[in-house]
Amino acid sequence: MGSNTFGHHLQFHSFGESHGEALGCVIEGCPAGLNFSPDFLQTELDRRRPGQAAWVSARNEADKAEILSGIYQNKTLGTPICVIVRNQNQKSSDYKEIENQTVIRSGHADDVWKNKFSHVDLRGGGRSSGRETIARVIAGAFAKMILQQLAPQLNICAFAENIGPLFLSENDKQTIIKKINESTANQYPVDSFVARFPFHDQPQVEELLLSAQNQGNSWGGKIHIHVSGMIAGLGQPIFHKLKSDISQALMSVGAVAGVVLGDNDEKSFSLSGIDFHQTKQSQQYGGIRGGISTGEDLIFKVLVKPTSSIMDVAKKGRHDPCIIPRAIPVLEAMVALVLADHLLLTRLDQLKI
Amino acid sequence: MGSNTFGHHLQFHSFGESHGEALGCVIEGCPAGLNFSPDFLQTELDRRRPGQAAWVSARNEADKAEILSGIYQNKTLGTPICVIVRNQNQKSSDYKEIENQTVIRSGHADDVWKNKFSHVDLRGGGRSSGRETIARVIAGAFAKMILQQLAPQLNICAFAENIGPLFLSENDKQTIIKKINESTANQYPVDSFVARFPFHDQPQVEELLLSAQNQGNSWGGKIHIHVSGMIAGLGQPIFHKLKSDISQALMSVGAVAGVVLGDNDEKSFSLSGIDFHQTKQSQQYGGIRGGISTGEDLIFKVLVKPTSSIMDVAKKGRHDPCIIPRAIPVLEAMVALVLADHLLLTRLDQLKI
Amino acid sequence: MGSNTFGHHLQFHSFGESHGEALGCVIEGCPAGLNFSPDFLQTELDRRRPGQAAWVSARNEADKAEILSGIYQNKTLGTPICVIVRNQNQKSSDYKEIENQTVIRSGHADDVWKNKFSHVDLRGGGRSSGRETIARVIAGAFAKMILQQLAPQLNICAFAENIGPLFLSENDKQTIIKKINESTANQYPVDSFVARFPFHDQPQVEELLLSAQNQGNSWGGKIHIHVSGMIAGLGQPIFHKLKSDISQALMSVGAVAGVVLGDNDEKSFSLSGIDFHQTKQSQQYGGIRGGISTGEDLIFKVLVKPTSSIMDVAKKGRHDPCIIPRAIPVLEAMVALVLADHLLLTRLDQLKI
Amino acid sequence: MGSNTFGHHLQFHSFGESHGEALGCVIEGCPAGLNFSPDFLQTELDRRRPGQAAWVSARNEADKAEILSGIYQNKTLGTPICVIVRNQNQKSSDYKEIENQTVIRSGHADDVWKNKFSHVDLRGGGRSSGRETIARVIAGAFAKMILQQLAPQLNICAFAENIGPLFLSENDKQTIIKKINESTANQYPVDSFVARFPFHDQPQVEELLLSAQNQGNSWGGKIHIHVSGMIAGLGQPIFHKLKSDISQALMSVGAVAGVVLGDNDEKSFSLSGIDFHQTKQSQQYGGIRGGISTGEDLIFKVLVKPTSSIMDVAKKGRHDPCIIPRAIPVLEAMVALVLADHLLLTRLDQLKI
Repeated sequence: MGSNTFGHHLQFHSFGESHGEALGCVIEGCPAGLNFSPDFLQTELDRRRPGQAAWVSARNEADKAEILSGIYQNKTLGTPICVIVRNQNQKSSDYKEIENQTVIRSGHADDVWKNKFSHVDLRGGGRSSGRETIARVIAGAFAKMILQQLAPQLNICAFAENIGPLFLSENDKQTIIKKINESTANQYPVDSFVARFPFHDQPQVEELLLSAQNQGNSWGGKIHIHVSGMIAGLGQPIFHKLKSDISQALMSVGAVAGVVLGDNDEKSFSLSGIDFHQTKQSQQYGGIRGGISTGEDLIFKVLVKPTSSIMDVAKKGRHDPCIIPRAIPVLEAMVALVLADHLLLTRLDQLKI
Repeated sequence: MGSNTFGHHLQFHSFGESHGEALGCVIEGCPAGLNFSPDFLQTELDRRRPGQAAWVSARNEADKAEILSGIYQNKTLGTPICVIVRNQNQKSSDYKEIENQTVIRSGHADDVWKNKFSHVDLRGGGRSSGRETIARVIAGAFAKMILQQLAPQLNICAFAENIGPLFLSENDKQTIIKKINESTANQYPVDSFVARFPFHDQPQVEELLLSAQNQGNSWGGKIHIHVSGMIAGLGQPIFHKLKSDISQALMSVGAVAGVVLGDNDEKSFSLSGIDFHQTKQSQQYGGIRGGISTGEDLIFKVLVKPTSSIMDVAKKGRHDPCIIPRAIPVLEAMVALVLADHLLLTRLDQLKI
Repeated sequence: MGSNTFGHHLQFHSFGESHGEALGCVIEGCPAGLNFSPDFLQTELDRRRPGQAAWVSARNEADKAEILSGIYQNKTLGTPICVIVRNQNQKSSDYKEIENQTVIRSGHADDVWKNKFSHVDLRGGGRSSGRETIARVIAGAFAKMILQQLAPQLNICAFAENIGPLFLSENDKQTIIKKINESTANQYPVDSFVARFPFHDQPQVEELLLSAQNQGNSWGGKIHIHVSGMIAGLGQPIFHKLKSDISQALMSVGAVAGVVLGDNDEKSFSLSGIDFHQTKQSQQYGGIRGGISTGEDLIFKVLVKPTSSIMDVAKKGRHDPCIIPRAIPVLEAMVALVLADHLLLTRLDQLKI
Repeated sequence: MGSNTFGHHLQFHSFGESHGEALGCVIEGCPAGLNFSPDFLQTELDRRRPGQAAWVSARNEADKAEILSGIYQNKTLGTPICVIVRNQNQKSSDYKEIENQTVIRSGHADDVWKNKFSHVDLRGGGRSSGRETIARVIAGAFAKMILQQLAPQLNICAFAENIGPLFLSENDKQTIIKKINESTANQYPVDSFVARFPFHDQPQVEELLLSAQNQGNSWGGKIHIHVSGMIAGLGQPIFHKLKSDISQALMSVGAVAGVVLGDNDEKSFSLSGIDFHQTKQSQQYGGIRGGISTGEDLIFKVLVKPTSSIMDVAKKGRHDPCIIPRAIPVLEAMVALVLADHLLLTRLDQLKI
């Protein structure tokens, strides 16, 4: 089955423990002849990196990408691409007392993994650590390079829609969506905001996060994923509808607890059919009908749990009071991977030569 | 990729158009020696059948299962099981005028399919019709028979949590959950309620649906999926976490537009970490941590769009004013398929003999 | 894993027991818009049908194809194609005494299947019967229709190179290869020969087979598979090289015990490199280098065991004294499936738009 | 499809070019709790290493394995195992003139790869170099460790049956088979012979190879693969019969041009059924009936082409006059991978708890 493999034709095989030698992935199915930019890859990794603000995890690693195969003269060969990132900063001593303690960390997976596999890696969660998302971002960077060459108008950009008690106004939301629509591929107008949350009062956001960090508390919220310049015809019904594969992708990320298609909240689903189907310029469909993209903007909402590692349990753990800002590049990467994979698959839909 | 194939080891291959000869599936990976009950299979099909109440689609078909292979003396052989249901009642004349008209049916997929595949089946939606769910229910019945033999305490039962403007009270919800916990496998205490909605005022539910039908309107809502007697250790991180595979399964069903893990609504995701992680006897995790089932009750919420076929577009189409009651057995089937598949896969987790 | 599924993108899912209701397959990944000819499908099935000569199995069934899905107005929809053939002539009484006897039929698989699955179908071998090859021929017919439209110059034709003690001369062989090269797609100049064996003395072939049948004996031999008008560039190194996938396909057929690439016999492999690499206009490579087709004629040799069911064991069983003539259309079908699948996959090799 | 992925449940993803940074693989599906021996892994790599005798390729690399993930305290975690070997000795200057020349190297794949992918790696063949087999040997070592723990009596050992004009006598062959049967797991009684060819006159073998090397010539031949202490019940009919999957595996190796099941040569296939089915204590079946292993010794023959790189074309290339001795550990690795994979899969055959 390949439980560490993602994708249909464009696949990546993820490997690496949080406190092992290295993490990385092998990318299969990337066509030959893709222009590869090492700088773009590193920029994408830097976007998810810890240690960039006062209120994120103190674990500061360079997360430098090392290419082992598949690239020659800055072009892909059509052979598997292996990229690794070495772990440099594994303070497993921080986790030493966890290993010895009998208390289970709430919301953590150490105990369920141990029951399942008998033998587990207690050096900081092993594969259940968020550090596995490095592989997703690497593979996602290649997916974005494919998309940029085959569909240069397409841009994937996500932003926080609420963080804990703070919610974007409809006005804030439309403003940032407008900016996304005006950007070119792989530009991220959201990155300039604190926590990738384009809330009108930025100091209030910073205050919320710092205060959570000081109190050993944390916040979740909602992420709005937006794809402008979409391609029509993506999705392979009936079990690989675009909405189904994107949901699978998003829900595979640790902190994600919910996915909604379209610019909908729970209230949308108490509307009558006449109201639902005739509102908002079809944004309630999120750019997908019958499981296939229509060419309209693709919209998903992602519900994110507050971070599990809170103070009273793993005091010294180097964790974030809110995972949303660092989850955003990871979720964008997952969407890019699904879109690039499905774009390649459309070449097989029809018989015409 | 097999876009009409579902599952890892326990797979089914779905086939059949809404107005073709037959629909059905081939089930692969079902172990040899499973006791097969033809009555149970037929009962499951009857649970999703149209024509059972005044307010459901008038398309009344017997949907009689015919076994073509894989069963001998009421036991599975370990070979592929093919089951078909013949279409008897294909009034494609109803759709004749759709074929000729240029108006696109809102929320329908006819146009996107046509763009994608050039050649399409206009006899009632082809594979984009809800009739494809027959194959899911057939395969799900086998999954349930596997679960019943390997985990007889497990029961999968879903119910409507709201239909349009009507919402279950917390009290109503706890009452029905209690009944589910007291039931044995493949009992459905919810089936006795109008529209599988255990709302305190049943005539009010019936009135809501009849009135929508008369007015050419429709309702969506939310479904609560509940699995009692769960098995611990299901899920294959990191890309086939149980939450990820179940979301993929649920979102592959036509009308589904959102999935949330745990007994959460949107408000849960504005709570602080301390509040979120210490409430409600861990029901907010929905029985999954680190992508693996904990053994606690499994809980998912499913957001369902109001039916697309509303009066002003496809007047004579035989459709439901609310798809929730008929979606419930389909969603239960999808959950059963994921659980049975993952239960078989756990046999490969450890090396011990 | 899908052990009854064949193919990467163009897949078929085979089902059905020898003495059950029906056999058939579901074909996935066949692009939309393929012209479908029901006559061609039936002709292909008739080519493998028993009961066509004095010296083949007496089991005479019409093997009439019935289309259940995926075709509309004689074009493929891009949806799964289900085709079945009903069993009409299941004399399981013939096998009754086998069920009761303790003697194991030499070369048969009844005992190993029973050990593996505990519960088995003793009505004539179930899935280990040669009757499962009906599904291969059905799927192969679709593969041939795809090839005919995308590569009309390509022709797949196999013939016996030896049957027991009778061997084609080099001259006989070159004559039939010349005829194959002059034929158009899906013409079979070999079909006019007794047992698809273009031996210079046809009555001698007939005599050999009749005499084996009368004596309860059987013959194996070698089949030469020839594809003229080949396409260059097929094959996906390194694990799905064309030679590797074709070998897998051919060796999956019951009676096949060996596969050799190129116009080679065992002696070729005692030649020195200089002699091997500079002879016979590169026919020793069989049209494949580095795992990828070169565009030259594709050549494989297949070694076939003498039929297992010989008189002293299953006296009344309706079996062939030589399986080669009926194996030929099956092997051709397998080659067609691999070629069509790989032809579709080449669309994903390069990035160019 | 994953054309660089091998296996069903136990999979490995191979990567790396001959003259790139590193080669290696990611192994998925290896159960948790396997005892890992770094020494055994290195020993297996050393068995395929060049530079070990006067008559093998002069490319002398340490081929030192580096573990990046999946192992903790010398046990597998159940997570993906990444192992790499860095390239140290990439004399791509040797190939410089090939890059510039227009002459195609006979039997080489440079031209077909270039046609297929447009952009290719000319630094020594890239992925079409035999150096990719390092990944097979790494993954095979893990498969052998799994087999040793689950089936300690099983031993996989291959030997040359002919090299060019020199053929083992029946007596030589039975002697070495006897030794294999007396060995314990992962012992290789064949390794003490020149070129892993247990020919009675060892200096004659050495002379043959040295002379070929001096003359710019090469030799192919036949390899006998033998598995003693086999497990019954392996194989997943009908498309993943053991004979089918092993053939696919063996034919995926560069120099392999033919595969025969059982202790058969071409003459076996001109025997009558009575003679074939009643000889040699069933060694003609090779330990497989109905696609499933019987528990008897598993026997395959592999036909190997003479090495392609002969003097008149790539004078300075560092190549072997006979690839058989170095192919043997690679083919053993492939067989180990298929057997370990199928052994794990048997856990899913039956329903019994």
